[in-house]
Amino acid sequence: LRNETEIIERIWQALPTRPRKKSGDWLQLGVGDDAAVIRAANRDGAADGDWVLSTDAFLERVHFLTEVHSPADIGYKALARATSDLAAMGAVPKFFLLSMALPPDRTGAWLDGFLKGMSQAAREFGMMLIGGDTSRFRSAAINVTVGGQAVSDKGGRVHILTRSGARPGDLIYVSGTLGAAQLGLEVILHGLDGKARGPKIPRGGTWKRLLQPHLRPRIQIALGRWLAGENAPRRPIATAAIDSSDGLSTDLNHICQASGVGARIWASKIPAVRVPQGLRRRGFGLDPLQLALHGGEDYQLLFTVPPATSRGLPKQIRGVRLTQIGEIVRFSARSKKNAFCVELVGDEGGARPLQARGWDSFANQA
Amino acid sequence: LRNETEIIERIWQALPTRPRKKSGDWLQLGVGDDAAVIRAANRDGAADGDWVLSTDAFLERVHFLTEVHSPADIGYKALARATSDLAAMGAVPKFFLLSMALPPDRTGAWLDGFLKGMSQAAREFGMMLIGGDTSRFRSAAINVTVGGQAVSDKGGRVHILTRSGARPGDLIYVSGTLGAAQLGLEVILHGLDGKARGPKIPRGGTWKRLLQPHLRPRIQIALGRWLAGENAPRRPIATAAIDSSDGLSTDLNHICQASGVGARIWASKIPAVRVPQGLRRRGFGLDPLQLALHGGEDYQLLFTVPPATSRGLPKQIRGVRLTQIGEIVRFSARSKKNAFCVELVGDEGGARPLQARGWDSFANQA
Repeated sequence: LRNETEIIERIWQALPTRPRKKSGDWLQLGVGDDAAVIRAANRDGAADGDWVLSTDAFLERVHFLTEVHSPADIGYKALARATSDLAAMGAVPKFFLLSMALPPDRTGAWLDGFLKGMSQAAREFGMMLIGGDTSRFRSAAINVTVGGQAVSDKGGRVHILTRSGARPGDLIYVSGTLGAAQLGLEVILHGLDGKARGPKIPRGGTWKRLLQPHLRPRIQIALGRWLAGENAPRRPIATAAIDSSDGLSTDLNHICQASGVGARIWASKIPAVRVPQGLRRRGFGLDPLQLALHGGEDYQLLFTVPPATSRGLPKQIRGVRLTQIGEIVRFSARSKKNAFCVELVGDEGGARPLQARGWDSFANQA
Repeated sequence: LRNETEIIERIWQALPTRPRKKSGDWLQLGVGDDAAVIRAANRDGAADGDWVLSTDAFLERVHFLTEVHSPADIGYKALARATSDLAAMGAVPKFFLLSMALPPDRTGAWLDGFLKGMSQAAREFGMMLIGGDTSRFRSAAINVTVGGQAVSDKGGRVHILTRSGARPGDLIYVSGTLGAAQLGLEVILHGLDGKARGPKIPRGGTWKRLLQPHLRPRIQIALGRWLAGENAPRRPIATAAIDSSDGLSTDLNHICQASGVGARIWASKIPAVRVPQGLRRRGFGLDPLQLALHGGEDYQLLFTVPPATSRGLPKQIRGVRLTQIGEIVRFSARSKKNAFCVELVGDEGGARPLQARGWDSFANQA
């Protein structure tokens, strides 16, 4: 049985993908990044006209549970997580196409709730529905294809943030807090809402704060645009970027693989979620560093900047904190072989390879 | 419980859709047609640069049965049916994004077969994979988002075939044969492969010819481009077009609703599939006219042309037969109220309203 990486590689190998790019080609960026980029035909070097496209499935019992998640939260998140891929490219979200496969008993009140949440997300992100498909199905299976416009700098040059631009010497940054979405999910999965054994979290302010990052993730559209150099004098701020959807260990690995570099990060620098004392002691595995390293769905931006840019980088942008967590290094042959291109420096100063242990839909198959 | 039309209307009502189109707007065509059309920003009146986008789900036990359909046939058809929406707009297929939700045991040989069929379709249509998503899921749920380029005439003017351009007096045409895909499906569903009671169809040439339109539909890309006026002196050949995916009665109804017109078609003129004698007599409901009127998945083009154009229309285009089946008429208030905007003239000359009885995923709910 194949894992997710193997499945994706098989798909790319079996289907026609990006050929060598020709001058005037409509395809600017094909498979392998957060999104693809297409350009109007015969408009090589055009200052606008680049569209950024991505598609994302959101599936019952895989990504959400209808007995746990409200229809409105599911609708909001279905659009948010797809649109996060546009944020990671520094694009301005514009439209989406919505495929809804639903059991018949989900086409009434449940659908209305779902659409309410999705509509809220669409208005927040400035997006419009331009197409879709509906079918009955035994489970709810939602697919969202999103499109956005690439930003341009003051000189009219179009910039896209890819995974492949990181260079040795660049500094690694992450926005916001890592592990918060995973913590919210664990709170739900462990039944810490007072119904099950274990520490109780009273429903109320604390409860809400713990669940919010999981239920209603904030996606980083404004930060992405800024990092891509929108209205900047010359070039993007970031050399590479990705959204932290699968977990830091996996997402940083994607940047390293795509850029052909290694990375070294410091455990002490990672802005890990604060875990309430009660939850840390009860053996739920709710260690802040582990949540931050391998927990998915934070939808923060993980990006790299050259040293010169790093010196002038603000501590926060548009209300979002930026934290330097490490540096891009050369990729040694040994680490290449072992496929551990990320090193974690622990509190005691020792470095060890960091395995990508984030979200893999096909991992741990029965 | 809502039917498909009601669900779609609810979605359009609840989510932000096309606002009033402004000059220079990137959105050329929003929800409600076979596909959406986006234009590069700030390129009002550009001669190229329009992208046509559509999304389509292909679901296990709804659209295909893994115990009946080979993985390669499923892969071919998943891309073909999505791309047919581009053909109906007269666009040139260019790319697709593929979402694959699969049970773990379908990620090996089954996936390889699926990709083989899909790759064949992609090469046939001239399309490239530019993005996608993979997840494990309890059923196979495939979603394909396709993109194509709008064609332009000799003067560089871009033309898109929509559902909304039919005018009273226009003649109604259809390509190829109708009901053939439904006949193939019925042959499979009734177990006429020699395993069940009833008439037997020996496996071989006849068998293959009966199943082919269902298993490997031919989509009408070249015809669509021609109808859209590619390289034509001035304007498109067709005033409106749609692909016959849900069945003639339903698809013609879509053109009428979108164009605000009525339609009158003659039963005797419809190019219905030929049903072998044995199958007609056994009470399987395999009546050629019924198959042609309500059978789905033929992926032929149903289109309208003005009378002047009609007089010079060839009998076939690029190997595909064109048949005039009726005419567009004014839409009377009475038929509006009853939502039967299509009239069928029978062999005896009497006209009766034709109910849209084609494919509705949510019809006949338990």
